[in-house]
Amino acid sequence: MKLTKDKTILIVGLGLLGGSYARALTRRGYRVTAITRSQSSIDYALKEGIIAAGSASPDEALIREADLAVFALYPHVFLEWIERFGAFFRPGTILTDVTGVKGAVIEKVREMLPEGVEFIAAHPMAGREVCGVENSTDAIFRGANYIVVPTEKNTPGAVELCRDLGKTLGFERVSELTPEKHDEMIAFLSQLTHCIAVSLMCANDDPDLADYTGDSFRDLTRIARINEEMWSELFLLNRPALLREMDAFRDRFEELYHAIESGDTARMKDMMKESTRRRALFDKR
Amino acid sequence: MKLTKDKTILIVGLGLLGGSYARALTRRGYRVTAITRSQSSIDYALKEGIIAAGSASPDEALIREADLAVFALYPHVFLEWIERFGAFFRPGTILTDVTGVKGAVIEKVREMLPEGVEFIAAHPMAGREVCGVENSTDAIFRGANYIVVPTEKNTPGAVELCRDLGKTLGFERVSELTPEKHDEMIAFLSQLTHCIAVSLMCANDDPDLADYTGDSFRDLTRIARINEEMWSELFLLNRPALLREMDAFRDRFEELYHAIESGDTARMKDMMKESTRRRALFDKR
Repeated sequence: MKLTKDKTILIVGLGLLGGSYARALTRRGYRVTAITRSQSSIDYALKEGIIAAGSASPDEALIREADLAVFALYPHVFLEWIERFGAFFRPGTILTDVTGVKGAVIEKVREMLPEGVEFIAAHPMAGREVCGVENSTDAIFRGANYIVVPTEKNTPGAVELCRDLGKTLGFERVSELTPEKHDEMIAFLSQLTHCIAVSLMCANDDPDLADYTGDSFRDLTRIARINEEMWSELFLLNRPALLREMDAFRDRFEELYHAIESGDTARMKDMMKESTRRRALFDKR
Repeated sequence: MKLTKDKTILIVGLGLLGGSYARALTRRGYRVTAITRSQSSIDYALKEGIIAAGSASPDEALIREADLAVFALYPHVFLEWIERFGAFFRPGTILTDVTGVKGAVIEKVREMLPEGVEFIAAHPMAGREVCGVENSTDAIFRGANYIVVPTEKNTPGAVELCRDLGKTLGFERVSELTPEKHDEMIAFLSQLTHCIAVSLMCANDDPDLADYTGDSFRDLTRIARINEEMWSELFLLNRPALLREMDAFRDRFEELYHAIESGDTARMKDMMKESTRRRALFDKR
């Protein structure tokens, strides 16, 4: 299947990310439909003209007519939805998602789908600190990474379609990772950083601190405003990889602690030089 | 002493911060002079018109004619400088500084100064990831905090002068803290955050990670590019307070670790809610 303009794309879960998909795809001339729990989200999206049709219930006709379906749901809601309604998809339909963990999701989804319906996982690394379709904007895709996460069960055509979707949405970089490598990467770059920000924010309850806060503390703790429903679920679904990255961070933190405690300036400087050198690699693009 | 426009302000140490002071004060009509090690920094500042006179050696005439002197040096260089040349200041001269730790500096400086020369400590919470007078700009003071750190040995006049200096430089907020409270605050808001960023950056050496890095990781690790000479010195000069804050952070990080490990969703969510609530306080100003 090619991502030609005659295709109907169904968004399941019309929140910030689903809404942003709908905006980008409608703007580019696709027919976009939506299924989401909230009628007011459907009403808003119809009024804004970012979907052609929508339903607050899992409407069988909308499901059947989809050529491509994008799931933008919490992981457990995604799995429940597929279990209950996945059988409605026509053979030949391709499903994809935006889920932030992959190992715990991909195979379960695949096993529940009817013959001829293929799931190709993807992780659009874009978001905002606000939620809901009312805050959606495809500006969040600019400069961001879109990761396709195929397994050996996927067809080359579905992988290509998913890559096309990422480019069509306006992502700057489209790449591929295995589920294992994706989950490791996300454990370090995203989940560990959220754990650190939360722990830091909880470590001191002096109410006067905000008076003296500079930009670097604000930058470091921006992600400490966190949706506890979503993140507690994502953490548990990626537990082994996340605990490994937490261990690795703790080891280096302890090393620095002991260097400071014992006045080991050489050790401190070595870590700072290593940190500076590695951080420079992240500036280069 | 009042900060009237007939005053001569000597900057000792013409780097990023000293240079930015010189720019702001010259622009506002003060006579600014400078002593710094590098002749090329003096040449640059004279050419830019941000100082009226300067020397690459501790010129006695420049020291004598200063009404107010600002020390923008590494802490140990500051202490050495005062020990060797502090006696050159005229009685009635006020000294201040930009040093990032206070308890380890204030009393030592005070004890070395001649009769009638008063030191009032200050911490301008402004900076950039680059150094040198060539990168100086008083734009770094906009929206930033300036903290005056008096002790019971200071006169009300010197405290007032120091507050006036902060306002004149263009800082958004000028406030006062005791040395103890300052060092606690800085241990948490600045030093601990740098320790975290360094440890995080050192915790994973996968060279592919940069390909998938989003904004939140970049924000969190911006300060991992760190001047190891300055920060290792600042860490050791504030060791007890910094180790206490590191302990507090580690306790909460371990709590979150065990919640994830044991699948304690309620504990995880409680921490995330606490974190979100506290972080919101930091957005309000």
